[in-house]
Amino acid sequence: MKVGGDYFRTIWLCSDGCSVEIIDQTKLPHEFSIVKLNSMKEAIHAIYSMQVRGAPLVGVTGAYGFWLALKEDASDINLKSSYDLLLKARPTAVNLRWALDRITNLVHGLGVSERANAALIEANSIANEDVNNCRAIGKNGLLIIDTISKNKDREIVNILTHCNAGWLATVDYGTALSPIYTAHDSGIGVHVWVDETRPRNQGASLTAWELGQHGIPHTVISDNTGGHLMQKGLVDLCITGTDRTTAVGDVCNKIGTYLKALAAKDNFIPFYVALPYSTIDWTISDGVSEIDIEERDQEEVTHMIGRNSIGKIEKIQLTPDGTSAANFAFDVTPSRLVTGLITERGVCSANREGLLNLYPENRMEE
Amino acid sequence: MKVGGDYFRTIWLCSDGCSVEIIDQTKLPHEFSIVKLNSMKEAIHAIYSMQVRGAPLVGVTGAYGFWLALKEDASDINLKSSYDLLLKARPTAVNLRWALDRITNLVHGLGVSERANAALIEANSIANEDVNNCRAIGKNGLLIIDTISKNKDREIVNILTHCNAGWLATVDYGTALSPIYTAHDSGIGVHVWVDETRPRNQGASLTAWELGQHGIPHTVISDNTGGHLMQKGLVDLCITGTDRTTAVGDVCNKIGTYLKALAAKDNFIPFYVALPYSTIDWTISDGVSEIDIEERDQEEVTHMIGRNSIGKIEKIQLTPDGTSAANFAFDVTPSRLVTGLITERGVCSANREGLLNLYPENRMEE
Repeated sequence: MKVGGDYFRTIWLCSDGCSVEIIDQTKLPHEFSIVKLNSMKEAIHAIYSMQVRGAPLVGVTGAYGFWLALKEDASDINLKSSYDLLLKARPTAVNLRWALDRITNLVHGLGVSERANAALIEANSIANEDVNNCRAIGKNGLLIIDTISKNKDREIVNILTHCNAGWLATVDYGTALSPIYTAHDSGIGVHVWVDETRPRNQGASLTAWELGQHGIPHTVISDNTGGHLMQKGLVDLCITGTDRTTAVGDVCNKIGTYLKALAAKDNFIPFYVALPYSTIDWTISDGVSEIDIEERDQEEVTHMIGRNSIGKIEKIQLTPDGTSAANFAFDVTPSRLVTGLITERGVCSANREGLLNLYPENRMEE
Repeated sequence: MKVGGDYFRTIWLCSDGCSVEIIDQTKLPHEFSIVKLNSMKEAIHAIYSMQVRGAPLVGVTGAYGFWLALKEDASDINLKSSYDLLLKARPTAVNLRWALDRITNLVHGLGVSERANAALIEANSIANEDVNNCRAIGKNGLLIIDTISKNKDREIVNILTHCNAGWLATVDYGTALSPIYTAHDSGIGVHVWVDETRPRNQGASLTAWELGQHGIPHTVISDNTGGHLMQKGLVDLCITGTDRTTAVGDVCNKIGTYLKALAAKDNFIPFYVALPYSTIDWTISDGVSEIDIEERDQEEVTHMIGRNSIGKIEKIQLTPDGTSAANFAFDVTPSRLVTGLITERGVCSANREGLLNLYPENRMEE
């Protein structure tokens, strides 16, 4: 997508051919900064510190990080230890494991000298596939928005989203925001309610920024506000992303998604989740009990970062000295609250049969 | 309640007898500051700028502000115009209107020279009644917490609250927090999950501060977190306050309360609302459609105030330049989601019959 007038992805192979560059998302919206990753260690830091975030982008960054590790040392021992280290960078999104598995499966049969190059080719493929998948999600989700628009006599369609599942969460286009970009670009009037998304404010900082860059009308709201807007008829549709989707259609996404899904259900508003197949964890059938929810540093809750009146980035403390905070990064929205899943292959019901109809290769013999 | 070792109310008549003093809640938790209100204009500013907030305290401050107005000019014209100006300071809580009506009804039959003194006596009564009501709410809510404690074999009872309905929201003791203080003081183990409560962070700044001053174990969480905690069995009970309670038991409280009530219902967790009778609006039967929801400055969403690394209070910008925000201050939780109402007269079901059983003087002849 465009930043200013220039076209960017969130991650790309450097022209030197031996490193990758990323947009440092911890600096947005106040500064557009590019960071070079020269080693697996730097890739892990980028993932853990959330310079890159969003399940698809975390997967792609993991893939490039794996390449950077194998470029240094492609031995079996380093293959195994790099896999483990990268996987630990963030535990909840399944894309990281999926990307690392893809590369492992590819290179473990190769000679040591061939591994790094093969890993790079695969990482590039994963990145390009992600772009194509996100574009397809946009096209598949367009129909949902277009139908609502028609039913409203082409009045503005109000869409609520939580966190950032835009192009910044992927390599390009985004998941939840891709249908919104596609609708806007095809002339459908849309307006987005952007949940601030505490504690890291990915909505207020990232979603607001990228929608603004693309010229899509939007309004930031506190995370507490969605229910009220839905009660008042000010939301036509919710679309979020997901960091891990279970085989039965539960979605594990940014903390607070569950609360919005409850409100959507209570107000008869469709609640869709957009995802590429790489977020589906076919091994899990009960999201609430089986998914490991990442707990992060309490300072993300007790403090906040922003730009002060003289333009300097500053961290401020919100709570009394010594106050403890808990910081769960994700929650699970049970499939019963999800109207449908928007994937690169089409839209399906949020249940096992719906997913297997789109991905029959995962149907096991009974 | 105590601050450091000293006993404070949130508002009190000054020793000079011609002004009132308040704790400036916009400065908490970083600074404990007392402000003197010398005129109605200063009282209105204190209410609008939220130096005082919380429905009961807003009512009491309005009453003292009315006295300050009548002290200057107790004519019929000023009585009317002061009433109107004070009422506009914050539109949603009904306590303000209730307190102003009490004083109007009392003084309008009096001679001009007697009005100010009568208003002062009434304002003092309203303040003292609030203290007694909050104490009674604590005692009436204690049984609920004690029963859960017994059922848990005296393990810690985890209580989630939203916003600040503690002693800072009243004159003393609080509404939602009063049962918690009472339980703690009687030896029941409690731990409070404190919703941060964006956009003004009354949970992270005020509730965390006052619980800390009283030594009650608590943990601050982002507003997105409650649903996850409930799914995981980490919440035994929710208690919130209310700014306006309809005749059928709907509660209008800080934005986001509705989302927590939905999650409590979805996880079979009791959701109680604590209130003095002054928050009941007997004229309203449908909270969602009939209550005027205050919209506040968008800067409360786009910016945040806290203490920087050198101890200075600083405002930081969270959103991209030019981003719009919407700032609805309250939402309505329909009575169907409320397990019960904890009042100074006892606990009742959240419906017309429950309320009328406790307040039979409001039963109209059918």
